[in-house]
Amino acid sequence: MAPSGLGRLLRPASVAIVGASDKVGPGLNAWRALEHVGFRGRVYLVNPNRPELLGQRTYPSLEAVPEPIDAVFIAVNRDAALDAVRQAAALGAGGAALLSSGFGEAGPEGVQAQQALAEVAIAHGMAVCGPNCLGFLNFTGQAALFGTSLPGRVARGGVAAVVQSGSVGIALLNSGRELGLAYLITSGNEAVTTAADYLDALVDDPGVRVVIAFLEELRKPELFVAACRRARAADKPVIVVKTGRSERGRQAVMAHTGALAGSDEACDAAFRAAGAIRVATLDELIETASLVAAVRGRPVSRGVALLSPSGGEIALALDVADSAGLDLPPVEEAKPALAALLPEFAHVGNPLDLTWAGLYDPSVARRCTELMGSRPEIGMLVLLQDAPRGLGEQQATRYASLLRAVADGAAAVGKPFAVVSNLAGELHPAFEEVARAAGVPCLRGTQEGLFAVARLVRWALDRREATPTEGESGDRAAERARAALAAVPEARTPAEHEARLALAAYGVPGPRELIAPTGEEAVVSARSLGFPVVIKALVENVLHKTEAGLVRVGVQSEDDVREAAAVLLERAAQTGRPFLGLLVQEMVQPVAELIVGGRVDASFGPVVLVGGGGVTVELYKDVAIRLAPVSHAEAREMVGETRAAALLAGWRGRPRGDLDAVARAVVSVSRFISDLRDEIAEVEINPLAVLAEGRGVSALDGLVVRAAGAEDCARRGPDATVAPRG
Amino acid sequence: MAPSGLGRLLRPASVAIVGASDKVGPGLNAWRALEHVGFRGRVYLVNPNRPELLGQRTYPSLEAVPEPIDAVFIAVNRDAALDAVRQAAALGAGGAALLSSGFGEAGPEGVQAQQALAEVAIAHGMAVCGPNCLGFLNFTGQAALFGTSLPGRVARGGVAAVVQSGSVGIALLNSGRELGLAYLITSGNEAVTTAADYLDALVDDPGVRVVIAFLEELRKPELFVAACRRARAADKPVIVVKTGRSERGRQAVMAHTGALAGSDEACDAAFRAAGAIRVATLDELIETASLVAAVRGRPVSRGVALLSPSGGEIALALDVADSAGLDLPPVEEAKPALAALLPEFAHVGNPLDLTWAGLYDPSVARRCTELMGSRPEIGMLVLLQDAPRGLGEQQATRYASLLRAVADGAAAVGKPFAVVSNLAGELHPAFEEVARAAGVPCLRGTQEGLFAVARLVRWALDRREATPTEGESGDRAAERARAALAAVPEARTPAEHEARLALAAYGVPGPRELIAPTGEEAVVSARSLGFPVVIKALVENVLHKTEAGLVRVGVQSEDDVREAAAVLLERAAQTGRPFLGLLVQEMVQPVAELIVGGRVDASFGPVVLVGGGGVTVELYKDVAIRLAPVSHAEAREMVGETRAAALLAGWRGRPRGDLDAVARAVVSVSRFISDLRDEIAEVEINPLAVLAEGRGVSALDGLVVRAAGAEDCARRGPDATVAPRG
Repeated sequence: MAPSGLGRLLRPASVAIVGASDKVGPGLNAWRALEHVGFRGRVYLVNPNRPELLGQRTYPSLEAVPEPIDAVFIAVNRDAALDAVRQAAALGAGGAALLSSGFGEAGPEGVQAQQALAEVAIAHGMAVCGPNCLGFLNFTGQAALFGTSLPGRVARGGVAAVVQSGSVGIALLNSGRELGLAYLITSGNEAVTTAADYLDALVDDPGVRVVIAFLEELRKPELFVAACRRARAADKPVIVVKTGRSERGRQAVMAHTGALAGSDEACDAAFRAAGAIRVATLDELIETASLVAAVRGRPVSRGVALLSPSGGEIALALDVADSAGLDLPPVEEAKPALAALLPEFAHVGNPLDLTWAGLYDPSVARRCTELMGSRPEIGMLVLLQDAPRGLGEQQATRYASLLRAVADGAAAVGKPFAVVSNLAGELHPAFEEVARAAGVPCLRGTQEGLFAVARLVRWALDRREATPTEGESGDRAAERARAALAAVPEARTPAEHEARLALAAYGVPGPRELIAPTGEEAVVSARSLGFPVVIKALVENVLHKTEAGLVRVGVQSEDDVREAAAVLLERAAQTGRPFLGLLVQEMVQPVAELIVGGRVDASFGPVVLVGGGGVTVELYKDVAIRLAPVSHAEAREMVGETRAAALLAGWRGRPRGDLDAVARAVVSVSRFISDLRDEIAEVEINPLAVLAEGRGVSALDGLVVRAAGAEDCARRGPDATVAPRG
Repeated sequence: MAPSGLGRLLRPASVAIVGASDKVGPGLNAWRALEHVGFRGRVYLVNPNRPELLGQRTYPSLEAVPEPIDAVFIAVNRDAALDAVRQAAALGAGGAALLSSGFGEAGPEGVQAQQALAEVAIAHGMAVCGPNCLGFLNFTGQAALFGTSLPGRVARGGVAAVVQSGSVGIALLNSGRELGLAYLITSGNEAVTTAADYLDALVDDPGVRVVIAFLEELRKPELFVAACRRARAADKPVIVVKTGRSERGRQAVMAHTGALAGSDEACDAAFRAAGAIRVATLDELIETASLVAAVRGRPVSRGVALLSPSGGEIALALDVADSAGLDLPPVEEAKPALAALLPEFAHVGNPLDLTWAGLYDPSVARRCTELMGSRPEIGMLVLLQDAPRGLGEQQATRYASLLRAVADGAAAVGKPFAVVSNLAGELHPAFEEVARAAGVPCLRGTQEGLFAVARLVRWALDRREATPTEGESGDRAAERARAALAAVPEARTPAEHEARLALAAYGVPGPRELIAPTGEEAVVSARSLGFPVVIKALVENVLHKTEAGLVRVGVQSEDDVREAAAVLLERAAQTGRPFLGLLVQEMVQPVAELIVGGRVDASFGPVVLVGGGGVTVELYKDVAIRLAPVSHAEAREMVGETRAAALLAGWRGRPRGDLDAVARAVVSVSRFISDLRDEIAEVEINPLAVLAEGRGVSALDGLVVRAAGAEDCARRGPDATVAPRG
């Protein structure tokens, strides 16, 4: 729920400046910003010490202003700012932008002040930009509450930027990249109105075609994700830098899943599910935004055709294309016609080296573009061409002609087209002029440029519905799973077989197994299961049995069972904790071992993961993560994203693994964690034994961490760390 | 051996232009290039059709020129160019630069012409730049044979560039990045003189402080590596883009080592050993060169201190610093003093948020810089600050003052210092002016900038001698290894135990084992080794025994040996190949399994690798590679670079592995492949079983591929693919 006043704040008919001034500083900057954007509403200057300012009469306080005010700009000290907000609220203002610092960022007293601010605003439905921000600029709606100086000219267009850092806002405003801004909103401390609220409002603004965001902290994540989904549906790309990837010092967790699918990974999964594009640096943000804002049309196939007159540029691009995951189809069908156009010795393919023939004869370049671009497998065309600003006229003219020819060819076949320069610097004006006239985005830097192309293609083609759920309702399964867990005393974490029982309600299979209280009963159990067997001693809240020496695998005979049981019982006794029984299991011979897990992220809700299991789990972090629940198709796709997938595909002469059963298990775990999100913090199967094709999977271990108990367990310390099963 | 004429080509006293002209084109460009660099020698214009050109008399042919010529510029068609080279050779010229195309790049006829060109040049000791290039510019020596137009001003300095692509040369020349060029050499087809030759010559040029190179193909790799080492010794960084990282379609190989340590990885290892810095894109090349060419001093500690007045920039940089592998020590000892300077609520640490206090009061910023920079663990200081060209004067002035203050602080403590901007674009002139005056490199783009810093620190501190060899001579070991291999008939690849015998000469331990020709003898062998045992059937040239069903592990009793032997013998017979015996081995319980291998790279010679073994080998490619031989210290460092190292360090409650023994095995394999480089193509131990600390390692399998036999084996097809041992 965005504050109801947000529309009035961003698109006010009347504005007051508290702290108005004619000296260098925020008060004067705010006045100038209104001029800069061409604000046509009424402006009231509030300054108790000066009767007149900037040729306008002033008012001693907000209360003295004779008519209702939509938006108030506040650049006075904290206490005065708080006063001004109270007055604005009482007068029914829509919102305020507070440059004032000394709030949440400034120690306990500031936090208190920020709370007071939020309470007043929320009570009156006021939107608040900041505090501790620079305010905002609305170029399309010609409004601004902005406290910092502006460059002479800001290119206007369809890109709305929401940034939590004022310094990043200044950087975007002055980048010289002619992004074409519709809005620049610096959200500061977000005491009331958050990036999610702005995004939610911007999606509905017809002047906004792309939203970019720089976030250090994501508040109201559910609203943010929902707004991203709406943007996706409206064909408005949302591109986000969210810092904190390197987040160190993650807390100790009960299961691997916590370490592997931490909040940053959950954030990734959520953005992906919602169709938002995540990037890592400001340069990537700018290049990706430049592309999606300016490119004509959208790719309808995954394939990208690269063209260049330079073998060197092609070699460079190939390396980067590989890491960007660009799909470069070989355009076999176009090869004979391309070969006929180019010198005999030319290497015809994709990327296409146009050679001097294409560089010196634009008609050749155009025809080559059409030949490649008309292939149905090609969704987008890219010209690899740098044209740095310092270039000699002769070369600049030649490169510009080449660009025009390729742009014409791309337009003729109706495929999206962009230029990628090898260099991050500015382009030659002659080259840029042709690009502008033809509506071609020119991306700077091989790395940033080709990654932007890859992101656009993926964004355009990942059109399937996010997180669909298939099949019947999970109500009955959830009921049975809850019943299974309710049978476990709250004081302890469910043991392996108890966790498996809860998962079985969702159709996750496990090994045949029996619980035996004594060694002799274990012998009987083993006999009925058939040798060899695995024997595990279950001890209350000892989840990592292998490390504690509580597991014996490959037990071959009755005598061996007796001997093993004796050892295990002794070790169980040494733990000093209640003994729960000996678990006797059939031994299975898996084709591969995976991990499947789920957890409830504090921001994004339930997530599910699958990846390589066993010893490699934490070593290689080879996992795919999605918001839960997932469909069968998504589950298969997740498995396909892991390197461990190779183990299931007839790895080195082994039989193929039962991929379908793996996907079913992932779907089951995703529904389990989704349905039980209020009761369960984490669930994990490690290893999930994958058998040969058609023979299914088997959960060889299981762990369910209850939501309420999660904290208690974490407090237990070292005992609660997790290890793979040997 | 560089062509003896190279010095005369690059620093000529007299120049002739074949194809001189006053029309737009190479002939005129060459004349202008000489003017541009300020050439003070004699210039002879060769043109049979014009008596006079550009105010100079002309000569109908080279032969007509009255005095010896050092360097000839040639921009006529192929056949005429070849003629001109012949004449130049006959006249004793030092070298020529050929723009002419139609040589090696242009089909069989061109290849032939290029051979003819090379023969003439080599016979006369002539250096040849090109053909199919743009020529070269020597700014420090004021000479040029260059056929393309130049920008009005090229910043001169200590950076020498050698590029194989003319288009990349043009990009560098015009990048507007003010790199400060000493040379730009476009080497084209390198018919005679290669990038390695130029590098070799440039290292000795006192005007050259940094060499950058763009290579698609590395010719004379040994000379290149040797020249890099000389550059390293002379404190001249060599920074290289070498394309081909993504190189697909590698040929089938006998051992994993080939796939894991292919020519690109060997190239990495060679560059690293030689102290060259490898980067991936032109932007990285430029930023890294800007840093190393301009930074004052060299880091003497690995730690880097980051400062910024913006929390947003810090958050962004932290993510990138993490992937760049920057070491950011927490500067604990400086914290109290820093805290005293900054607002109470400031997060004091590294990175240091200077807050508004540092931004508005330069003396605070300066003092903070000194406090951090004076810590011995800090080797370099970085200010994170963007200042885009379009910035308002107010902010630009403030940022420039901040820069000056931090630069002063860094100078006061004598630590290298650079600025990293969040944006790849140009900087505000006021900011740049301060940077220039203070001699501070300003790097553009968080990614490119922080990676450049990480590269400089690593380069400066990796001072230990490359590939040292320790201990006694390997002569006797090599002799014994050769004898072991000579005992194996040439028609087949050495079997596992035979490979192990050769490796044993270098001190690599293996399991206790016996060869048994029959099942009954296998029973005797097993009895003497003690149960359980592993039994393998050895069949000629079947190297992947597990896939062929020729291995039984965990054989527990004499009856089991009989049964296993019967099955194995039957399977051996099914292969239709000669049976070599049953190998009966003790069974060991490793803490971890690694792979150790070596191969002889065609370009860089012997390399050694170590990494995670077993099923993960090709799945996760978790390996470290070096040129062989390596020292014990290097071997330990290699192990430390792999993620598998965690398995040896008391992984999840397991005992610690014998790291020292692993390092000894890596050293042994590195010496083995190095000593036997002429006889052996590949060697591999997979798995190398690592036992608990103090208990050593054991080569559980071994493979040696002879150099002569490598091709034959590869031709055998699918049988020759490789798999991990189960």
